[in-house]
Amino acid sequence: MFARMVLLSDKDLNKLHNASMEILADVGIAFYEPEAIEIFADHGVKADGNVVYIEERHIEKALESAPSEFKLHARNPEQNVTIGGDNLVLCPGYGASFMIDAHCEIRNAIMDDYVNFCKLVQTSQTIDMNGCLMVDPNDRPAKSAHLDMIYANIVWCDKPFLGSSISRQAAKDSIEMAGMVWGGKKYIQEKPVMMAIISSLSPLQYSAEMAGALIEYARHGQTNMIGLLMMAGATGPVTLPGLLALQNAEMLAGITLTQLVKPGAPVIYGSTSTVTDMRTGKLAIGAPELSMIQNATIQMGKFYGLPCRGSGGLTDAQCTDMQAGIESTLALNTTVMSGANFILHACGILGSYLAMSYQKFLADEEICGMLRRMLKSIDVTDERIDLDSIKSVGIGKEYLTHPKTLTHCRSEFYLSGTMSRVDFATWRKKGKMQLNEKLTKAFQKRIEAYTQPDIAPEIADDLNRYIRAKAG
Amino acid sequence: MFARMVLLSDKDLNKLHNASMEILADVGIAFYEPEAIEIFADHGVKADGNVVYIEERHIEKALESAPSEFKLHARNPEQNVTIGGDNLVLCPGYGASFMIDAHCEIRNAIMDDYVNFCKLVQTSQTIDMNGCLMVDPNDRPAKSAHLDMIYANIVWCDKPFLGSSISRQAAKDSIEMAGMVWGGKKYIQEKPVMMAIISSLSPLQYSAEMAGALIEYARHGQTNMIGLLMMAGATGPVTLPGLLALQNAEMLAGITLTQLVKPGAPVIYGSTSTVTDMRTGKLAIGAPELSMIQNATIQMGKFYGLPCRGSGGLTDAQCTDMQAGIESTLALNTTVMSGANFILHACGILGSYLAMSYQKFLADEEICGMLRRMLKSIDVTDERIDLDSIKSVGIGKEYLTHPKTLTHCRSEFYLSGTMSRVDFATWRKKGKMQLNEKLTKAFQKRIEAYTQPDIAPEIADDLNRYIRAKAG
Repeated sequence: MFARMVLLSDKDLNKLHNASMEILADVGIAFYEPEAIEIFADHGVKADGNVVYIEERHIEKALESAPSEFKLHARNPEQNVTIGGDNLVLCPGYGASFMIDAHCEIRNAIMDDYVNFCKLVQTSQTIDMNGCLMVDPNDRPAKSAHLDMIYANIVWCDKPFLGSSISRQAAKDSIEMAGMVWGGKKYIQEKPVMMAIISSLSPLQYSAEMAGALIEYARHGQTNMIGLLMMAGATGPVTLPGLLALQNAEMLAGITLTQLVKPGAPVIYGSTSTVTDMRTGKLAIGAPELSMIQNATIQMGKFYGLPCRGSGGLTDAQCTDMQAGIESTLALNTTVMSGANFILHACGILGSYLAMSYQKFLADEEICGMLRRMLKSIDVTDERIDLDSIKSVGIGKEYLTHPKTLTHCRSEFYLSGTMSRVDFATWRKKGKMQLNEKLTKAFQKRIEAYTQPDIAPEIADDLNRYIRAKAG
Repeated sequence: MFARMVLLSDKDLNKLHNASMEILADVGIAFYEPEAIEIFADHGVKADGNVVYIEERHIEKALESAPSEFKLHARNPEQNVTIGGDNLVLCPGYGASFMIDAHCEIRNAIMDDYVNFCKLVQTSQTIDMNGCLMVDPNDRPAKSAHLDMIYANIVWCDKPFLGSSISRQAAKDSIEMAGMVWGGKKYIQEKPVMMAIISSLSPLQYSAEMAGALIEYARHGQTNMIGLLMMAGATGPVTLPGLLALQNAEMLAGITLTQLVKPGAPVIYGSTSTVTDMRTGKLAIGAPELSMIQNATIQMGKFYGLPCRGSGGLTDAQCTDMQAGIESTLALNTTVMSGANFILHACGILGSYLAMSYQKFLADEEICGMLRRMLKSIDVTDERIDLDSIKSVGIGKEYLTHPKTLTHCRSEFYLSGTMSRVDFATWRKKGKMQLNEKLTKAFQKRIEAYTQPDIAPEIADDLNRYIRAKAG
């Protein structure tokens, strides 16, 4: 296992922590949800209108009760995952409104796309968890689309999944519907089965929707991933240390609220902040600074003993070209090797979160597979050094026909399913296929090979009844 | 600065070292150059025919005299580089016979390509050193092509460069020609101005050509990069620990020879070993195991206190597609973050070393630029956290028009020259250019903008005279 990268010293971590404490105590942070203000005030946090002034002692108390590791339950117990420790849990892209196809054409995402992504997650050897809002289905009413997505998460896939956090009502619906799988929401009160993506609105604000969703998820014992996307030089300071101090203040405020609602409620720390390209004013998620911020953020989360979120296969490229490969690999590699426990946007994202792509999903899955291979130990033992074999082969001979080679080659080497490893002549003869084209075929194969996991008909009925009543 | 990744424990390093000692003492290693055997024997190493049996005490003595850091001089002193310590020196691809163009067509490489690569290195903000055999020019006689390449290295570029190591004679010619820049080879005796890429022939052999070149470079105070490319499961053990032990034995044998020839001769430790794809029997340089071996090899080199070589922008892709981006970034990122001091094949390679590509050169250069940015400190100081600005912006306001943003945005952010950071509509309006296409234009611009660095006419005359006499 890699010792992972270390960008900040202990002194740096303490300095950033102290700066965040000063921000929260002096400037305060706004929560536009009255119940959040009430909860803070009830626990002795100074409040003035929408703004609370959180002191270090409140943060410390919250950090004490927040778990460093917890299990996220799937409806198929074999698919349960553990968040925290040295575990790595991968989850697809989030929040895209569009689809980009193999020919770099763009179109609105629809519910069929969402279902296809559920099927890809279900058939993935690498992706552990299903998303929510992987794409925003344009063919469903905004008011009830989250119901369709939660339904799809439950019936098309049996892995753990994200709940909707677009509003307090969406959170309540997610909890009701997920609860049905376990016989009612009271049975998941002490059993996290979902995770909500909660984002502050930088600088120093939580919308009513986000704070309301956070409260519901915490209250029902479900996981809150407290994160944000701060744009250095736009919604946050231009210097990286300033950004790290400010985003830390925002995340700690949200985490404190979860623990005031329910001490011990599972929570994850982690941002996806990056820089703004000053030539275009555009978010640059393929920038190397994103990787630096990822590394520093994960270190900061570990400093607090919290499970850390990283993100992901990120790129500003508009299609699955070499740029997409370069940027996504840099971000994923850094995030994984920095020690992230949970990665959002692990696969699928194109065009700075604008769109998802099937080809990109499969390419990122390949990157994730390679990174998982690299996390396995080299395992230096006498048996594996195997001096006897080295001595028997000796000088100038070959290992290809050695019996040990046949024994170990399947387990020792990661075999890529889609990366080209043929010679140029063979590659040309087979039509000079670029990775993008191969992945289009691979996508079709995956969807064809998909089989729906069993689900009790009563559960499906309950879910359908709930949706009809709500969407009415 | 990242602490870099750590794949092996101290116990692992010692175990591998001991295994290598046992291999060298018991199996021995062949040198098919009689002078190498003589040198070993003269220093008390047991020799039997072509095989020497090197003991730990010989290795230890060599490691004592090998420098941990040294300067490599360029004909323009502003381009000098330091190898070792925490420095990172980047050098282009090596050994390709072909060129692959933007349309994935292949052709023989010619001398004009070689000169173009010299021009790209000269105009690079990222690549510190010129190569040798960046491509093997098909339009020059094999016997004298190295003379043309060394000439090109000297006159088209004023950065430090690789010498030829294809034979003892090529090494002698390189030393003579490089010497002319400094008034004669005796003036570079204590002043390394060149580096030779020396490879053992696994398992456990050094060809007459390589050993001869090594001896010449060491004797004249020039740098030997002692490396190899072992194919796990073909020319080396299938298990990674076995491969690491065996390749370490081979590298230590070569390093010992350099120090016997001239104690203190500059030397670099580092392999580019990887796995064999057992489905095709083909070298897989885009495999994640390459990155693991890179990390472990660099750790091993640091364990010995030697400057370490890593490699590079490696891929099995046959064209500049997403696969090329993914594999090259994974390998480069790992190698840089693992602590490599010198990176061969930093840019240009396609198709498992088959070919170089101008587009790939520029894409890899971009990856290297991003990695260099990531090596810069975040620099957490009170001034850079800048609580005053954070307090003055406060809650819900913006940083875009803050004076500090304008002051810092140029120095704080890495601005990519070629990566797309425009929105989809703009990108479509501008012709939906993929990275590959943009790099074709960028290449033409770079070549047009190139200006030849000054060189004294006497030096050029001397070089020409030497080549005519030799090639004549």
